[in-house]
Amino acid sequence: MKMITGGVCAAKGFMANGIHCGIRKNKTKRDLALIYSEVRANAAAVYTTNLVKGAPLAVTRRHLADGCAQAVICNSGNANTCNANGIEIAEQMSELLAKEMKISAEDVVVASTGVIGQPLNLEPIANGIPTLVSGMSAENGTLAAEGIMTTDTKKKEVAVSFEIGGVTCKMGGIAKGSGMIHPNMATMLVFITTDCAISSEMLQKALSGDVQNTFNMVSIDGDTSTNDMVTVLANGMAGNQEIIAEGADFSEFMKALNTITVALCRRIAADGEGATKLLECKVSGAKDDKTAKTVAKSVICSSLTKAAMFGADANWGRVLCAIGYSGADVDVQKVDVWLVSAKGEIMVCKNGAGVDFSEEKAKEILLESEIEIRVGLNSGDAKSTAWGCDLTYDYVKINGDYRT
Amino acid sequence: MKMITGGVCAAKGFMANGIHCGIRKNKTKRDLALIYSEVRANAAAVYTTNLVKGAPLAVTRRHLADGCAQAVICNSGNANTCNANGIEIAEQMSELLAKEMKISAEDVVVASTGVIGQPLNLEPIANGIPTLVSGMSAENGTLAAEGIMTTDTKKKEVAVSFEIGGVTCKMGGIAKGSGMIHPNMATMLVFITTDCAISSEMLQKALSGDVQNTFNMVSIDGDTSTNDMVTVLANGMAGNQEIIAEGADFSEFMKALNTITVALCRRIAADGEGATKLLECKVSGAKDDKTAKTVAKSVICSSLTKAAMFGADANWGRVLCAIGYSGADVDVQKVDVWLVSAKGEIMVCKNGAGVDFSEEKAKEILLESEIEIRVGLNSGDAKSTAWGCDLTYDYVKINGDYRT
Repeated sequence: MKMITGGVCAAKGFMANGIHCGIRKNKTKRDLALIYSEVRANAAAVYTTNLVKGAPLAVTRRHLADGCAQAVICNSGNANTCNANGIEIAEQMSELLAKEMKISAEDVVVASTGVIGQPLNLEPIANGIPTLVSGMSAENGTLAAEGIMTTDTKKKEVAVSFEIGGVTCKMGGIAKGSGMIHPNMATMLVFITTDCAISSEMLQKALSGDVQNTFNMVSIDGDTSTNDMVTVLANGMAGNQEIIAEGADFSEFMKALNTITVALCRRIAADGEGATKLLECKVSGAKDDKTAKTVAKSVICSSLTKAAMFGADANWGRVLCAIGYSGADVDVQKVDVWLVSAKGEIMVCKNGAGVDFSEEKAKEILLESEIEIRVGLNSGDAKSTAWGCDLTYDYVKINGDYRT
Repeated sequence: MKMITGGVCAAKGFMANGIHCGIRKNKTKRDLALIYSEVRANAAAVYTTNLVKGAPLAVTRRHLADGCAQAVICNSGNANTCNANGIEIAEQMSELLAKEMKISAEDVVVASTGVIGQPLNLEPIANGIPTLVSGMSAENGTLAAEGIMTTDTKKKEVAVSFEIGGVTCKMGGIAKGSGMIHPNMATMLVFITTDCAISSEMLQKALSGDVQNTFNMVSIDGDTSTNDMVTVLANGMAGNQEIIAEGADFSEFMKALNTITVALCRRIAADGEGATKLLECKVSGAKDDKTAKTVAKSVICSSLTKAAMFGADANWGRVLCAIGYSGADVDVQKVDVWLVSAKGEIMVCKNGAGVDFSEEKAKEILLESEIEIRVGLNSGDAKSTAWGCDLTYDYVKINGDYRT
């Protein structure tokens, strides 16, 4: 497997575009994105578990009931959530796009991201769709990545090539993250494309399994969004023999998918609202998978740990505290903690108690932009990783006045 | 019942003191507090559910096994938690105090608050105890309230008088809050004293019941501390007939206790680290108590809602979002939301969707220092209140470099 360029258009038969249509006031920001497959693709998706769900999710869920889709339309600047006419608007978005592209509205994935509870005006979208469609190409994946951004400061795209039964397949994805990021059984907005041939059942199985270890292990601020969604479109144009069951090919596909999703998780976490650092909590030695996940996520979610990391302060007691209240069944007398970065690693806690360490060395390690908090539970073989970011002045600034 | 002055010394037979003994570097900050009852008192306590527990909690739990205590010693500046010799140090604190006061070490409640994972030096405490004891008086409740503060900016004390069987009783309490505040089945450090005669069984019953609706409904930052503890000492010196069962007297006692605890909850929330506003989420119309509590606490804990309140931004979509991911079984199509303060109230959401409202009026309401987020679930009669504060630059500042 190797990393390649091209993002969501890396795989054969996919085109994309992103434009400014006028939902956002700032004309330099794209606010409407399109992804299109030349042929109908098998599709899978996972959605937020928030009971308050964006209207587009209900429409997409219905459109994907047959396991197929051909295009994705997504606007930023407005979540189309908690609006009386949200479903109607999301349906009209699908229909307008389908008409312009001469495909079935049932094959459109529709998504929205932005402010909750403000009616979404269809007019700029309707006016923008012809330009959106006429400008799409296999070179414009990056424009789509830009079109789904909200408070993200960096576009997030990634692609890999891999082999299935001697045939080279490609897979690429784009994501928007930033705030209200604490996915639960689903995720933020992520669109993944592949030319690998795989049945929609196996595609859904791959996706549902993968997100438990990837997007569901990311938290920026503990707030599970109303509009989280990951979709994968697999158009089969690579020409491999279709994957219809578990086995070596499915494992290889899972590996490619996991490479894409982990890369996007890291980018989402590193570009969390106001973030200056990517935090990775790697837990090992847990008695089971659930314990490892619970501990890793609790540490990543701790406001106090996040603020300490912002200040490059090796206040490891906050890590122990977060492990202790996580709800996981942990023997706290066996917990070891290290702080790790490109500048080296340092043990700060052994058997649940502090050890002497150089504060100077710890500071040097924590001033890096990617920090690993490594936790050894010494009670088994299970491990897990969670991703997050530091808590900064800018998180408060961005969210103290988001709407204006 | 009426509010009175005197804090933790308001009740008959209680004396207190607070000094600077040298645990904290800043000599203007008191770091050692004492509360003493002339006679042995019935005692009850609740403790943190964090698996990582401060050493003083283990010692206090053992000392309170017989339901009695006579003195409380508490230092600030160091939590005596995650230290290899923590238990030993906490025992020595009890013994040194007991020796100086000529009471039994088994009748000492010991507590610590501050940094986790740094060895606690006994020397300044040993040297300070004689001064601490000789200076105690019924007028020094405020000094004890100051002695337990960490990053608190205001001391927190409250007292009431109430009648049991025609006899006037008094009750007072002090608290330290500020950060790492998200109590779970217990609370931050709170010491309550009363001269009411009540058996230790009924005292524990009153306390354990009350905290479910008071301290367990407070969150500053979602981090459940390792050292949370509330204790009540009841020395019986008011002379009422001892409360030994449920009934009118017990109800009256519960009312007094609840008045003290709610007042302390509000002060702890209003003085959360970096806070500029007290937030109260009042949920009504829930189908049951658990639903009401889950919803109220989820809203109060939402980083995005907290940041919006800091910015006086009526971004009610974040309130709906927090209700949706709370895990409570709520019909989101029935949810109403109002924003309320001394400047009036405004409905922002009806039946789960936005309603037109004056942004100007909303801004005026939200610029106040005490904000109520009122949520109507329209699905039953249960209600609950949770307390918290806004998320500000100063929270990040305080916690980005707490140890230095």
